[in-house]
Amino acid sequence: MSKTNSGNFFEDYSVGQVIDHAVPRTVSGGERALYHMLYPARHALHSSDAFAQGCGLANSPMDDLIAFHIVFGKSVPDISLNAVANLGYAECRWITPVREGDTIRSTSEVIGLKQNSNGRSGVVYVRTKGTNQRGETVMQFVRWVMVRKGDLDAPAPETVIPELAKVVDVADLTIPEGLNFENYDFTLAGEQHCLADYKVGEIIDHVDGVTIEEAEHMMATRLWQNTAKVHFDVTSRPDGKRLMYGGHVISMARALTFNGLANAQMMVAINGGAHANPCFAGDTVRAWSEVLDVAETDAPGVGAIRLRLVATKGGEVGTLKGDDGKYLPHVLLDLDYWALMPV
Amino acid sequence: MSKTNSGNFFEDYSVGQVIDHAVPRTVSGGERALYHMLYPARHALHSSDAFAQGCGLANSPMDDLIAFHIVFGKSVPDISLNAVANLGYAECRWITPVREGDTIRSTSEVIGLKQNSNGRSGVVYVRTKGTNQRGETVMQFVRWVMVRKGDLDAPAPETVIPELAKVVDVADLTIPEGLNFENYDFTLAGEQHCLADYKVGEIIDHVDGVTIEEAEHMMATRLWQNTAKVHFDVTSRPDGKRLMYGGHVISMARALTFNGLANAQMMVAINGGAHANPCFAGDTVRAWSEVLDVAETDAPGVGAIRLRLVATKGGEVGTLKGDDGKYLPHVLLDLDYWALMPV
Amino acid sequence: MSKTNSGNFFEDYSVGQVIDHAVPRTVSGGERALYHMLYPARHALHSSDAFAQGCGLANSPMDDLIAFHIVFGKSVPDISLNAVANLGYAECRWITPVREGDTIRSTSEVIGLKQNSNGRSGVVYVRTKGTNQRGETVMQFVRWVMVRKGDLDAPAPETVIPELAKVVDVADLTIPEGLNFENYDFTLAGEQHCLADYKVGEIIDHVDGVTIEEAEHMMATRLWQNTAKVHFDVTSRPDGKRLMYGGHVISMARALTFNGLANAQMMVAINGGAHANPCFAGDTVRAWSEVLDVAETDAPGVGAIRLRLVATKGGEVGTLKGDDGKYLPHVLLDLDYWALMPV
Repeated sequence: MSKTNSGNFFEDYSVGQVIDHAVPRTVSGGERALYHMLYPARHALHSSDAFAQGCGLANSPMDDLIAFHIVFGKSVPDISLNAVANLGYAECRWITPVREGDTIRSTSEVIGLKQNSNGRSGVVYVRTKGTNQRGETVMQFVRWVMVRKGDLDAPAPETVIPELAKVVDVADLTIPEGLNFENYDFTLAGEQHCLADYKVGEIIDHVDGVTIEEAEHMMATRLWQNTAKVHFDVTSRPDGKRLMYGGHVISMARALTFNGLANAQMMVAINGGAHANPCFAGDTVRAWSEVLDVAETDAPGVGAIRLRLVATKGGEVGTLKGDDGKYLPHVLLDLDYWALMPV
Repeated sequence: MSKTNSGNFFEDYSVGQVIDHAVPRTVSGGERALYHMLYPARHALHSSDAFAQGCGLANSPMDDLIAFHIVFGKSVPDISLNAVANLGYAECRWITPVREGDTIRSTSEVIGLKQNSNGRSGVVYVRTKGTNQRGETVMQFVRWVMVRKGDLDAPAPETVIPELAKVVDVADLTIPEGLNFENYDFTLAGEQHCLADYKVGEIIDHVDGVTIEEAEHMMATRLWQNTAKVHFDVTSRPDGKRLMYGGHVISMARALTFNGLANAQMMVAINGGAHANPCFAGDTVRAWSEVLDVAETDAPGVGAIRLRLVATKGGEVGTLKGDDGKYLPHVLLDLDYWALMPV
Repeated sequence: MSKTNSGNFFEDYSVGQVIDHAVPRTVSGGERALYHMLYPARHALHSSDAFAQGCGLANSPMDDLIAFHIVFGKSVPDISLNAVANLGYAECRWITPVREGDTIRSTSEVIGLKQNSNGRSGVVYVRTKGTNQRGETVMQFVRWVMVRKGDLDAPAPETVIPELAKVVDVADLTIPEGLNFENYDFTLAGEQHCLADYKVGEIIDHVDGVTIEEAEHMMATRLWQNTAKVHFDVTSRPDGKRLMYGGHVISMARALTFNGLANAQMMVAINGGAHANPCFAGDTVRAWSEVLDVAETDAPGVGAIRLRLVATKGGEVGTLKGDDGKYLPHVLLDLDYWALMPV
């Protein structure tokens, strides 16, 4: 029997199954510095202890997407090694910020299954949860992936499609304990616009572009111990290209939003998202945002802004889908999330 | 009104204006490790706590250029986003070493203005100062940049050209508190030459060369939250090249000086400097130094050496300018600085 | 007299000579994070404090190869700057794990010399030892290199060839104090196979491949302050290629073994090794292992597994040498080592 992990196939999953993912990870100032090296991340709350303390926190938490990438990366060997496609995200919520010294692990529960009509693959829905060394939930999200069958003769499971919220309710957002934007320093944050300055429907062009190299996306993906072959091995695709980890595009685009959304300090939820087209080294990634909603929270001075974040490799700002309802070829990512912003 | 930063234009500056730059940054062992990954930095005082303790310090301070890059990088969105050229440096002095856990911020004061005769741009002189979370000055420097006018009809300001020292006086160098080279370990430092072994006029070929990749200079530049488009976006120049951040060349060249100047442990001042020619990925950077002066300091066993550091992409060692007084095409950097060395 | 280091030539060495290598290095969480960025390293003991504590350790030690690279890198300017080839390793043993905050230095003793019959070069055998700031031995190894003569007229030294163990005896392996695998968590470690599941002669294909970029191997090599020109300077070889540091291949291959050897948690000895063929950017590195031996140790639940680790750039798994006894062209590395594994 082979000792290597060939991954799970569609027929290996059952609704209710809980999978403990391997290789917990302790993070330090190293991961924090690397995040700043890999992405043009400048949101002040994630850059400066002093700024974070001015917002009522003990120190600067790690970038929210560091938690996402680690929790996601751990799930890859068990969930998406034989995935044909990563189809969607929902109900992603950050609960406890990650700080230096924390050890993160990750667990997934299968919450839905649907075999495709061709009998060769199926959709697996999992709720993946990250916890720290104190057993606190760091974050959780639902994703669904299309997974190949290993044994085409395996019987189709009963179809279970979970009911998922289209948008995380504002009341369900977790505001980090102590967060207070009443004495927020807009100058050090980099922009003067507060929540009241953003109107629903407003579109923001984030202007800057970043051309990505193979070394960068591979190092970023490896950093989170994400081992999917297609990101690293030129022999794994017929075209000899290394597919960029979708999370690299998310982090790049989110960092680019600083220019226009410098005060959208913390991501607290992802309502949904799609990797519209693949991204490859040599592409120049740009971003634009659309304001989808604004809301109050119970924390002093803290509002919530719901944003559509679109990453592109060119094309006109604001264009997303063609007449056929499909994403235009220049669109890389369409992400719907909630962030916290001074009111 | 656009929410993104379009940067300041020449007519937006006035002498005496003080600009607080955004996004303070907390540094850790991560930034320190990354510096060693990006540059062949081997000066022992910045590499080893034990060595630094043997020199009277509490522990090993961050490389001096880490402070420079962070303080400089923060000033880019306010000072040089619309710059045509970075014209020069003067009166750069390091005051308080940066240590793990420090949070650095940056402020600039406009100290000079001169509109160009073409009426389309002008020169802006700023004194930029970095401070830590205790309000101590980390370092400061003057730089002047040529900035485009946004409104060509804006009236020319009164011309003010600041008087700047050609060389920082030895008496004005700040020696880190406690520094003592009386029990200096030349073996662990890597070379046996002390200050007395260097003669004014002596030229040192640092021998080694490093070929630079796009991924490397972009990651280095991003690490310091320097956001100038030309470093990252292949569409921002007509030739499709990404211009290397001049500071990357400074750090690379300074690191290469280890071979011949291993005991020039700390940079304490930059007297002046010019980025003679642009550097691009694929160039192989080399360095040579000329001893310009030597001096004593009040600290036990600690002398100061004034060096010209020249980075090249080839060419003969010692050659700098042509008959026309212009830098030869292979010269990348001409930097004049003071470093501390055992007497 | 030139102030730069031209390295030692064959005639500069004498048996019994002890060389203290320069530039001690303090490591932090930064080096640890970088290791995870550069290699797909996932062995849980080196990834998680919580997992390491479950194995009886105070916290997660640095990857064993971090210690190797630092100790080796420091020796390069004194031992292998003029080396024609790195011929072999023996008697490599890890003694004290490296932890954040440790300062590592390195010393070599010349234990053998043999001038080549052509009179132009000779083989130098050194035992290199790394120590931490408390004077404890971190690790030590013997390596032998072929070094050019600087002065062809220098007399040949008396030939001394040290007697070296073909294999480090199990009784000589140092088990980190407190290590206990009795409550080992196989799920978090990533695989269920314990020592009893591995049979001598068994061959494991580690399946995954990683295509390597210039930026990656140069940054990795620089991180360990290894300054050999051939890794960094495209002008240093006639073919304009940068030769990859052999240690980069070792780390890449060892990390790839996770898939099939996830429980071979710590390297405790290298019995021997050869860099069979050079590796260059663009190569896709793969790995396979052969089980050479299994043994018990005195530590509770801790066994030792002796493995042949072969890194390739393709070719058939299990193929190593041709009929002529020479390594096949696709073989990059042939390493014989001991690792610790739950029994």
